Amino acid sequence: MNPASAAAEQRRPERLRAGLERLDAAALLVVAASPRDPDLAPWVGASRLGEAFLVVARGAAPRLGYWTPMERDEAASTGLDLLSPELLGVARLVQAHGEPGALLAAVLAAALDQCGIAPGRLAIAGSWPAGALVEATTELARRGWSFVSGAELLRGLRKRKEPHELLEMRRVAATTGATLRAIAAILAAARADANGELWAEGRRLTVDRLKREAALGFAAAGLDQPRACIVAPGEEGGVPHTGGSGDRVLRAGESLVVDLFPRGRLYADCTRTFCVGSAPEALLRAHGDVREALSRAYALVAPGISGWSLQEEVCALLAARGWPTPISQPGAVRGYVHNLGHGVGYELHEQPSFRQQAVAEEGRIEAGDVLTLEPGLYEPGEGGFGVRLEDMVAVGSDGVENLTPLPYELDPRSW
Amino acid sequence: MNPASAAAEQRRPERLRAGLERLDAAALLVVAASPRDPDLAPWVGASRLGEAFLVVARGAAPRLGYWTPMERDEAASTGLDLLSPELLGVARLVQAHGEPGALLAAVLAAALDQCGIAPGRLAIAGSWPAGALVEATTELARRGWSFVSGAELLRGLRKRKEPHELLEMRRVAATTGATLRAIAAILAAARADANGELWAEGRRLTVDRLKREAALGFAAAGLDQPRACIVAPGEEGGVPHTGGSGDRVLRAGESLVVDLFPRGRLYADCTRTFCVGSAPEALLRAHGDVREALSRAYALVAPGISGWSLQEEVCALLAARGWPTPISQPGAVRGYVHNLGHGVGYELHEQPSFRQQAVAEEGRIEAGDVLTLEPGLYEPGEGGFGVRLEDMVAVGSDGVENLTPLPYELDPRSW
Repeated sequence: MNPASAAAEQRRPERLRAGLERLDAAALLVVAASPRDPDLAPWVGASRLGEAFLVVARGAAPRLGYWTPMERDEAASTGLDLLSPELLGVARLVQAHGEPGALLAAVLAAALDQCGIAPGRLAIAGSWPAGALVEATTELARRGWSFVSGAELLRGLRKRKEPHELLEMRRVAATTGATLRAIAAILAAARADANGELWAEGRRLTVDRLKREAALGFAAAGLDQPRACIVAPGEEGGVPHTGGSGDRVLRAGESLVVDLFPRGRLYADCTRTFCVGSAPEALLRAHGDVREALSRAYALVAPGISGWSLQEEVCALLAARGWPTPISQPGAVRGYVHNLGHGVGYELHEQPSFRQQAVAEEGRIEAGDVLTLEPGLYEPGEGGFGVRLEDMVAVGSDGVENLTPLPYELDPRSW
Repeated sequence: MNPASAAAEQRRPERLRAGLERLDAAALLVVAASPRDPDLAPWVGASRLGEAFLVVARGAAPRLGYWTPMERDEAASTGLDLLSPELLGVARLVQAHGEPGALLAAVLAAALDQCGIAPGRLAIAGSWPAGALVEATTELARRGWSFVSGAELLRGLRKRKEPHELLEMRRVAATTGATLRAIAAILAAARADANGELWAEGRRLTVDRLKREAALGFAAAGLDQPRACIVAPGEEGGVPHTGGSGDRVLRAGESLVVDLFPRGRLYADCTRTFCVGSAPEALLRAHGDVREALSRAYALVAPGISGWSLQEEVCALLAARGWPTPISQPGAVRGYVHNLGHGVGYELHEQPSFRQQAVAEEGRIEAGDVLTLEPGLYEPGEGGFGVRLEDMVAVGSDGVENLTPLPYELDPRSW
């Protein structure tokens, strides 16, 4: 048992058993195309398995299935009881079943049989190619199995972080902070030419130069960016999820939203907004309002409160300053156009959810949660801008800890 | 229309229409958690959308659905006809459906309705969280839809590379080659101490040092490694898919398998095996046999031949040299224990398949294919070794082109 799964073992099995009982499911089945699948990752530590699956009969120990003896050492490194391809007869099943869906159904049926699970109701989670999965579950349904989603159960289980998980998120957040500081340093050293274009290192400063700085910083620390990053200047930052055009030259006096969300074993997530040179009045005002919104969120966030109630407070504050919000103008694309935050963990967006529809535990902030607070204001279109300030915080029983303690200033020279 | 999808548009739509007809499906539905999903990527170019889906009614133009107006610019950058969240009424559907599976079913039903597709048979592809997907397709089945896998149809469509795809694979392969040369240079400069441990840059040389070199080289070129890489010394290389322990110190006289498979818009894949210092007789012999096997594969590979027949030839050659092979000893873990190669593309493992079970087109090598040739020999256990030499080649009508032209020598000083 590696340290990662050992720690997770201590608290979560009983909640898993109870959750399967609530779902009236005899077992949990996780199908994963990668060991980094958020529904599998907490069980397999740093293993670099390929495709795999996990079977947990209600109240029993988890068992890990894998597809090829070439991965026997990676499978063994998880410390889990194994359903080896030899035990499952994978080689024979490959001969018998040409189609991926039929093969998947046969292998899963063999695994369920090995675990003593008779046809009945299963909670299914993980992620898998849709064609094979739909064909396989249809075939298994013919043989008497039925399926309910186990994803929300697993999200609930991993909402409160284990100590080893928080430690890893601290490490990833620290690298994220160092990378934002490196980007601030490049911006601080940049100079504008007569046309307002920024120059650094003897050439025009582009979005790609800053994305490269992020990629190198994360690669050096062993992190990756499965969902890339956002480096969005001016009008591109006016749309929250626009990633930024690589060859776009940065300009003095415009906003620059830098949102980094790299992954180690778990994710971190942090955003800062910069402006090199003199910031226009409208941007300064928006930046001030976003800082106030973030302060308000910090003042209110505590165990027991719901993410949605924080969103309501921030909407009230920004509405009072004249901005459209998702509450006052649903669907607006100008002003405050998104939610205040989200949980972070093995997925970039996890529980707690800040959505109004989130049911009790899912939407409630509790000690042990890690989440973002990220108010933003957007002016889309020609000459537009974006401002977003995002911290990732760990909620404790007596306050929150900012895992991304960085300046909030627009001016990179004050960093 | 961006250049990527423009090129794909030229040849593949008619084959898609015919494929849907063969499957008796009214439309293709691709559900993708990421724009890098291999079933979606050929349509969306460099867009950095989040979750998305594609609907292609048989004979009609593809339409791209997305979930939030925050991604409207990323969606527009694909040049595809859009099924916007406003058009689909996503905000209203989110209010009405709490559960992810029910919400997915409602959004897909709205999209199918917008495309004029009445309940009937759909080809489904892409990849999606299993719980929501199984619940959604079960709900859609209640409303009259049925599903067949569209994954193999799409694999077939993208088997033969478009010119812009081959160009990108060339770029990724070139960076892979440069990175292997950088690793060879570190090994060539390493010195063994009295205990046989290698030193470089003033410290013991570890697996992690070489993995870091790879990560930095790829990050600088804008590539990522979604499936990590293999740097497996000695006994770790004796098991083909063991990734290598980070803190493992490299030693003189042992094998070192370095298998890199980074991704740009598409993947590249290349393996070399090194030995610093004097190589033991058994390793030299295995290396010579692997080189001969690779030469045999090169001599035979050509349009029209099947991957399986290449595998048979290589097995015959290695069996004649006394090695167990998957044909002579199925399930063996010593000797030649895997297949000779695989297609490469938007997925690391694509068509052509080298498996015996591969049906005609799927298993047949044709002009336009890009594939690996990668014989290997393995001696697992204490004191064991691995040797694998893998080239990625583009098949032309009058010969193959090696996209990873690198030395095959064990000794990094001869690189």
